[in-house]
Formats: sequence, C-alpha cells, structure tokens
Amino acid sequence: MLQERVDDLVGEVDQKLRNIVLTDIDLLEEASHHIIDSGGKRVRPRLVFLSYLAAGGENVDDIVALASAVELVHTATLVHDDINDHSLTRRGQISVHARWGRTFALLTGDYLFTKVYELMAPYGSEYNIIMADACVKLVEGETQQAAAAKAGSLDQETYRSIIGRKTASLFEAGARMGAMLGNGNAVLVEAMGNYAYNLGLAFQIVDDVLDIVGDPEAMGKPVGSDVLQGTGAVMAQNGRKDADIGVVSEADPIKKLMNQIRESGAVDIALAQADERANRARQALQQVPASPARDQLESLIDLVLAREQ
Amino acid sequence: MLQERVDDLVGEVDQKLRNIVLTDIDLLEEASHHIIDSGGKRVRPRLVFLSYLAAGGENVDDIVALASAVELVHTATLVHDDINDHSLTRRGQISVHARWGRTFALLTGDYLFTKVYELMAPYGSEYNIIMADACVKLVEGETQQAAAAKAGSLDQETYRSIIGRKTASLFEAGARMGAMLGNGNAVLVEAMGNYAYNLGLAFQIVDDVLDIVGDPEAMGKPVGSDVLQGTGAVMAQNGRKDADIGVVSEADPIKKLMNQIRESGAVDIALAQADERANRARQALQQVPASPARDQLESLIDLVLAREQ
Repeated sequence: MLQERVDDLVGEVDQKLRNIVLTDIDLLEEASHHIIDSGGKRVRPRLVFLSYLAAGGENVDDIVALASAVELVHTATLVHDDINDHSLTRRGQISVHARWGRTFALLTGDYLFTKVYELMAPYGSEYNIIMADACVKLVEGETQQAAAAKAGSLDQETYRSIIGRKTASLFEAGARMGAMLGNGNAVLVEAMGNYAYNLGLAFQIVDDVLDIVGDPEAMGKPVGSDVLQGTGAVMAQNGRKDADIGVVSEADPIKKLMNQIRESGAVDIALAQADERANRARQALQQVPASPARDQLESLIDLVLAREQ
Repeated sequence: MLQERVDDLVGEVDQKLRNIVLTDIDLLEEASHHIIDSGGKRVRPRLVFLSYLAAGGENVDDIVALASAVELVHTATLVHDDINDHSLTRRGQISVHARWGRTFALLTGDYLFTKVYELMAPYGSEYNIIMADACVKLVEGETQQAAAAKAGSLDQETYRSIIGRKTASLFEAGARMGAMLGNGNAVLVEAMGNYAYNLGLAFQIVDDVLDIVGDPEAMGKPVGSDVLQGTGAVMAQNGRKDADIGVVSEADPIKKLMNQIRESGAVDIALAQADERANRARQALQQVPASPARDQLESLIDLVLAREQ
C-alpha cells in the first residue's frame, strides 16, 4: 500500500517536472520534456518521500516540489554530463546533446538548473542552504572526476571523494530535507542523512561496476563509457592507475580493458565496498522509529545492491 | 562622496566573489578567480547598491551578498556564452573556455551558478523567487538568441524579446531586490524595476552597436562576434534578415558585412531606440524621491549611452 502511494507521488513528480519547464521557447520545452520523459529510476524523489513519511510527515503535498527539485538537479547534470562525455544515448533514448547539439544541450541543462532554483525558492532559507550546498558539491565532484580522467589516474581516496560529492551529497540533502519537512527531530534528521549518504555511495559504486559488467540494453547507455572517462570505480578499487593499463582511445582497446578489469578481481572488491556502505546505511536506520516507510527505506538498500541497470 | 562609497562597495563585491568560490578543487577556484579578476564594469552590483540607497536602506552590509549574486549570474553566463560562441578572449583576457577547455568551462559556469544559489539562499523566499525568475528568463533569452542565430534570421520583435530576457530582466531583478531590501514602498520598488528594465534594454542595444562599430582593444573581445551569431541589434533594427545579407562563415565576409551595416544607417536607428529606452528610464526615476543615489542612477543612464566598451 505504501509502495503504491509512493509510486503515485513519483507520478506527481513527473507531472510537476513536465509543468515547471513549460515555456514559449519551444526548443527548451521540447528538450526538457525529452529528458524528463525518458524515465530513470526516480530513486532520489522516492528517498525524499520516504524520509518525509518516516519522520511522521502527513501533508505529502508539501513535499512534491522539493522531491521534484532533487530529481531535477540530477536531470540537469545528466544533460551536461552527456556533452562532456560525448554520449549519444541516455536512458535508452538519444541524448539531448546528440539530438539538439551542444549549444542547446548546454542551455537546456542551465534551464533545468534555473527551474530547480524556482522549485526550491518557496521553501525558505534553511532548505535552500542545504540544496545549494549539495549542488556545489555535485559540481565539485564532477570536476574532480573530469580532472582525474584528464590526468589519466585515479586513486582510491580521490574516487571516494568524487562519488561522495557527485552522488552521495544529493542523496543526503534529499533525505535530510524530507525528514526536516516531516518535522523529524535532530536525531532522526541526522540518521536519515547518514543513511542516505551511505546509500548514495553504494549506489554509485554499483553504478560504476555496472558500467564494466552490465548489459548495455538494460543500462540504456553504452557500457564502458566510464572506462573511457578513466573514472570507473573498479580501477580505483583495484588500486591500479589508468596509466598502468594504457591510454584508451578506440573501441577495441575499451573491450580489452574491460576484460582485464573483469578478470582482475577488482569488481569483487568494489562490490564488497558497496556492501559495507549498505551495512552502514542499515545501521543508521536503526535510529529511525519503526514504520512502513522505514521498511521501504531498508528495502531500497537491497534494491540498490541488486540492480542490474 | 556617494560615488566613492559605491566604489568601495563594489570592492567588497569583488572580495566576496573571490571568497565564495574558494574550494579544494584547484581548477574550479583558479578558473573562477580568472573570470572574476578579469574585471568588467560591475554595472549590475552598482545598480543594486544605488537602488538600495535610493530606497533609504541604511545597512549596506545586508546587500553586499545580494549584489555579488547578481554580478555572479552575469559572470556564469559569460563563461557558458564563450563556449557557445567559441570566443578565445573575454574582457581582454583569454577566456575560460580557451584556457581550460570546454569541459572545465562548462563545469566552471555550473559552479558559479551554484554559488549564486549559495549567496542568495539566506535572503529567504521572496528574494529567491525574484532571482530564480530572472535566471529562467536569462536562459530563455540566450536560447532564443542561439535559435535565431541558427535559423539565420532575426526580426525586431524577437530581438526585443531576446534583450529583454537575457539582459533587462536581471537589471530589473537587481534593482527591485535592492529597493525591497532598502525598505522601499511598493511604488518605489515598481519604479526602480521599471527604470532598471529600460536601462538594461538601452545597455544591450548599445552593446550590440559597439559590437559593430566599437574599437576591439577598448572592448577586450573580438568585434563582430555577434554578427557571426546573427544577433547584432543592428540587423534587427534595420528590419533586414540575416539571410538577406548572406551567410557569414569566414573572417573577410564578416568585415564586409559589418561595413554594409555601418553604411546602412541601421546603427543610427538602433541608437535612437536606446535613447528612447533611456528616456523611459529617466521618467521612471521621477517617481523616486530625490537623493544623491537617485542622481547617480540618472548619471548611470548617460554612462550607458556614452560608453565605448
């Protein structure tokens, strides 16, 4: 029953996102709808709703715009990422970059980000400070990743910093804001933030592993794209530098490199680290009062670990 | 005396901007400092300060972050614009795009925009709604401009919409927020917004004219770059479509086109329209109580019309 309720709320997020990007500049509206309609797992808004409910929040209407904003930060990032990664596909569809070109993809990403700001503004200072901080960290993490790719080297510590900033910070901010708006006390807000941060780390590690071993059709994007970026989790987990393996610039060398990584045992090391983060997330949930929402948050951990796309 | 006071405040904005972008991600900090330190006229923060003072505001410390945020929106836009325009120079310096490459320029622009959000968050909902709205319009205007450039045609009405959104809206938002924070009444806030919107239109028309007839050394950027974009004011003022003049793709044809525009009388038509907007700005100021700040706002109109860079 709760599952269905959250599914309905996610449907409201989709509608909210479609509405907020309406404009007389047709191209911006079309490109925005293209990326919004292309789906995605909507993990972040689910996390916001469940955190709100776990904290005892009762007026879910209050939280739909905030959950939409959190998803839209992620969406804006994807549009800009695809420019930097030269990705032609995203979520099984043509990317905004491939369909509308670089200039309009850049502007569409900017537009979506201004709409995040518009969605968040009514929530007041406390929430906007948290959200701004998460957005700053996200861009820092993306930059660190691009710099590592350019340098052709990535150590374990940098990898940890990258995924903490670019993924876990927004998970944490969403859960914190959800718990706050649900009138959770300080202990609960802290616990939810801790849970979500660790969930985000596990999520990103699994994501990077799937980039190496995943099924391209299930992923909806080319497998190995992160290898080309030199940012695969697995290389870092393995403690090996990209440079040790050699520079990758063609299709065949990527396949070769991916095979090397698969055979190196690094995938297992990475998955063990994802498990460890999942355990920390579970522990953090112990400080949250039992409820159907908490049960769902616990299930979310297992879904993250088991996902195949 | 007031002039010096505003100069000091602009110095505080520069310091605030330098400080807000500090981060352990060296590249982001360096690229941000590069564009912040490259100067610029700082028209927008001046406008915010003078609006605050004209409304009777007495605690200028309250407004420094807001004035910084308004300038930073503009700065972030410049960094992304230079990617789309392939500009190698900006304010007489190498552009972020030329020095750090496209990926890092994109991320630096994103970073600056997240810092706008960080600066604004403490001001609360009312101000953040105004600022978010201005940012949305700005990106819409940029997109409209890029679409016109791609289509190779630009009519008077579209040109008016572009400069209203991409330039005048941020001028208006800055003046409104300044007047509101200075505790101006509704009539004064409206008058300041009206003044600043028309000032912004005049500013952009003059800017576009300078792109045609200006001295490249004084401008600190290549003259004719907007002609290449098909967005020069002058073509629109002249009622001619880009397509009538022919497609521009090399250096020589640009010079030829610029000469054609200079000789067509379109520059005079554009400047007459800037004058008309300046008059509207002057009229709006009549509703603002006389004060040294109002005098400065009036002088700003003349400066905008007379500027050569």
